[in-house]
Amino acid sequence: MSKQITSRETDYAQWYNDLVIKGDLADYSAVRGCMVIKPYGFGLWENMRDVLDRMFKETGHVNAYFPLFIPKSFLSREAAHVEGFAKECAVVTHYRLMNDPNGGGVVVDPEAKLEEELIVRPTSETIIWNTYKTWVQSYRDLPLLINQWANVVRWEMRTRLFLRTAEFLWQEGHTAHATAQEAIDEANQMLEVYADFVENYMALPVIKGVKTASERFAGAEETYCIEALMQDGKALQAGTSHFLGQNFAKAFEVTFSDKNNKLDYVWATSWGVSTRLVGALVMAHSDDEGLILPPKIAPMQVVIVPIYKGDEQKSEIDAKARDIVKELKSKGIRVKYDDSDNQRPGWKFAQYELKGVPVRVAIGARDIQNNVAEVARRDTREKNSVSMDGLAGHVISLLDEIQSGMFKKAYSFREQHITRVDNWDDFEKVLQEKGGFISAHWDGTAETEEAIKEKTKATIRCIPLNNPQEEGRCILTGKPSKERVLFAVAY
Amino acid sequence: MSKQITSRETDYAQWYNDLVIKGDLADYSAVRGCMVIKPYGFGLWENMRDVLDRMFKETGHVNAYFPLFIPKSFLSREAAHVEGFAKECAVVTHYRLMNDPNGGGVVVDPEAKLEEELIVRPTSETIIWNTYKTWVQSYRDLPLLINQWANVVRWEMRTRLFLRTAEFLWQEGHTAHATAQEAIDEANQMLEVYADFVENYMALPVIKGVKTASERFAGAEETYCIEALMQDGKALQAGTSHFLGQNFAKAFEVTFSDKNNKLDYVWATSWGVSTRLVGALVMAHSDDEGLILPPKIAPMQVVIVPIYKGDEQKSEIDAKARDIVKELKSKGIRVKYDDSDNQRPGWKFAQYELKGVPVRVAIGARDIQNNVAEVARRDTREKNSVSMDGLAGHVISLLDEIQSGMFKKAYSFREQHITRVDNWDDFEKVLQEKGGFISAHWDGTAETEEAIKEKTKATIRCIPLNNPQEEGRCILTGKPSKERVLFAVAY
Repeated sequence: MSKQITSRETDYAQWYNDLVIKGDLADYSAVRGCMVIKPYGFGLWENMRDVLDRMFKETGHVNAYFPLFIPKSFLSREAAHVEGFAKECAVVTHYRLMNDPNGGGVVVDPEAKLEEELIVRPTSETIIWNTYKTWVQSYRDLPLLINQWANVVRWEMRTRLFLRTAEFLWQEGHTAHATAQEAIDEANQMLEVYADFVENYMALPVIKGVKTASERFAGAEETYCIEALMQDGKALQAGTSHFLGQNFAKAFEVTFSDKNNKLDYVWATSWGVSTRLVGALVMAHSDDEGLILPPKIAPMQVVIVPIYKGDEQKSEIDAKARDIVKELKSKGIRVKYDDSDNQRPGWKFAQYELKGVPVRVAIGARDIQNNVAEVARRDTREKNSVSMDGLAGHVISLLDEIQSGMFKKAYSFREQHITRVDNWDDFEKVLQEKGGFISAHWDGTAETEEAIKEKTKATIRCIPLNNPQEEGRCILTGKPSKERVLFAVAY
Repeated sequence: MSKQITSRETDYAQWYNDLVIKGDLADYSAVRGCMVIKPYGFGLWENMRDVLDRMFKETGHVNAYFPLFIPKSFLSREAAHVEGFAKECAVVTHYRLMNDPNGGGVVVDPEAKLEEELIVRPTSETIIWNTYKTWVQSYRDLPLLINQWANVVRWEMRTRLFLRTAEFLWQEGHTAHATAQEAIDEANQMLEVYADFVENYMALPVIKGVKTASERFAGAEETYCIEALMQDGKALQAGTSHFLGQNFAKAFEVTFSDKNNKLDYVWATSWGVSTRLVGALVMAHSDDEGLILPPKIAPMQVVIVPIYKGDEQKSEIDAKARDIVKELKSKGIRVKYDDSDNQRPGWKFAQYELKGVPVRVAIGARDIQNNVAEVARRDTREKNSVSMDGLAGHVISLLDEIQSGMFKKAYSFREQHITRVDNWDDFEKVLQEKGGFISAHWDGTAETEEAIKEKTKATIRCIPLNNPQEEGRCILTGKPSKERVLFAVAY
């Protein structure tokens, strides 16, 4: 069977789309820029969400839910924020439809115009800080450590499944603190949580850093980020955590009296990751045969496929397979026995490769006689004959091996794609020929950052945390610089 | 301490609002008709959602996610559906804001008008069936058993926290089947799941039935429902499950070829419950002291409060309390040890009563000496001195007792409030003086149903499943009738 997946070499962007669509992760919808997340893709997101949610709760956070709509005037309250978010958003202007008097279906009822337009949230700082105003009076009410899982809408002009869609799902943490230091610590803590999640569950190494002023979240004093590398050498921002200072507290008049009864504005953070991570996962690990999913978050970790002729062979294999399924399930493994009879084993093999199921176990009639099964791992496509005795244990340790193997492979790729560059010619050459991160000196000005972006499309992805200080000269202007920053072309 | 909760007798509606607000379940927001679900209320909803989600998965369903927006023309495709849902909805007409040229903040960019308006989903049948069209070709693609957890918006004119809000959270199941019978079976199965959940987790007895034609979901052939009774004698629809026939398949051209290669339209169901259930929970069980939450879904099941003077007593109690916490947690109990020192025990007692925590354990210095603790149950407010030995076991069986006690109490109240009535005078009298469900004959016409509603505000809540057939005469018109139906004034 041909899966009709475009190869990465032929067309990387089309390869990605093929995987998402044919791998049953998502589908286009009738609404421009909005996608349908299909059950298999949603199962993956659910697993990611559940792990993150547990991590948030373990670090003391609770969930809540704030309105979908934001009064238009709220966006204008914080000057930088409105510049960043007011541009492309969905605006609700009316609250009723009516039958067309001319018989043309339903039309907007002109009588039902809202006094103030409502914006479908592109992010919720404004509506949340307007609420916090009534929740915070004293230092005793702090900190507020709240997260929400929600849909948000940003009217992007060029959309791509998972990576950039008009509507997407995410979580947004919004915390309120009595001191700047506590808020900074919180922002850093959540960056660590994100890095832990992306590296240890998604098997994707990240670089932790801070954004330059021009790449900061609109309204933030500091934006911390984790940056990952895709197989085509482009970077992808996998999560951000913002120290918001007192900007939103000032915009929404959120004050508290401290222990000495002195009034001050509250300090804030916000932090978020989204369904974009699903796109990162696909792009970072998969191959020309289909998805490769890390076992810890794969919706299906193991699939068992019987190979038989006739009912007698089938029932022998069934009995054995059901024992294995039972044992794996009892150990918390997500396993499926696919004994459907409308497709041949070869078709099933290809299908589960496409879907990135980490381990495939095939059992034939002769295998039963020899008390073995064929175990194939998706990441390396290695196959081995394994004794039925202790098969479950073997599969479980194989899942661990795949998880760490995937991380190691991605880590080694990433390390090979951080290139130190000291002059402009090399910078352009590496960008064009090799891609990846470029570690180079920059003079620290927004003008130079912008000029480099215009010339090459590369942006400063981050200034790494604990960045070594070293004397150098800006690759573009030759002006003095005290540290290297990481450039890349990014998604 | 006065909790300042209005009593039920004084003002039932205000009592409800007081509980929701002061019990920290929800708050009003800056957006008309939209509420903020606070962490404590959201924790309750999370527990409800997790149980339901497990039940859906156990009955073979998977989750997915469909767009928030529905093209306006989609609503018109199914004739009955548009009548029911096009009226009050949020309409997105523009996709961009701009700086006001006159300096008045941001305004809608008139250039950014959508060609076709988008409706914020009031329910998702249309966008989902438009998607199913591309997913279903053959009987092999059926059934589709898909659920989504989502926010929906209905522009209600009169809103009440949880019970009726412009935006609310819910789950909506949308299934597709090869035969009418399979779809009907599915609709019935989900009704059973809902009844199981509401009775066995929310401790709230329900009556299962079908709606009359005029109370059906817009676009359904049959609407199954569960109806619960509140303490003020009003009914509340707690969940619905719809057999949609082939209506949406015809509207969106969703056909499949059956085993004989014959083309037919697909059969559909949809079913949903929402954050409205939180309102039902509050109204059905609580008292004038605050919330009473069923242990199975209470965010906090047990709270332990120390009573002490000085550090020495405190540390003795601490040690004991931490042992109990540890043991309860190891048994999966959600327990909090509240040793905060900024409030007195009496204040804490009142606070946890207000919040409906099922079991409170108080430990004083003398209790330690006597090796006992004071255990208070929230539902009956009974207090007992219990030996520390086996305290955890005692608390766990008490939680079970509270759960079943709450159901029994609500059941007994409900049974006392189903009144058989055989003439109009009694009908009006019972409605006014006693409330509750009235079991009475009805002539089966929509006209009579409407006339009764206009005279008394009572509607037919349902025709119970397995309803005994009996000859009688309509309470209003005296025309012949074959069965009794259940009337009530409803939320």
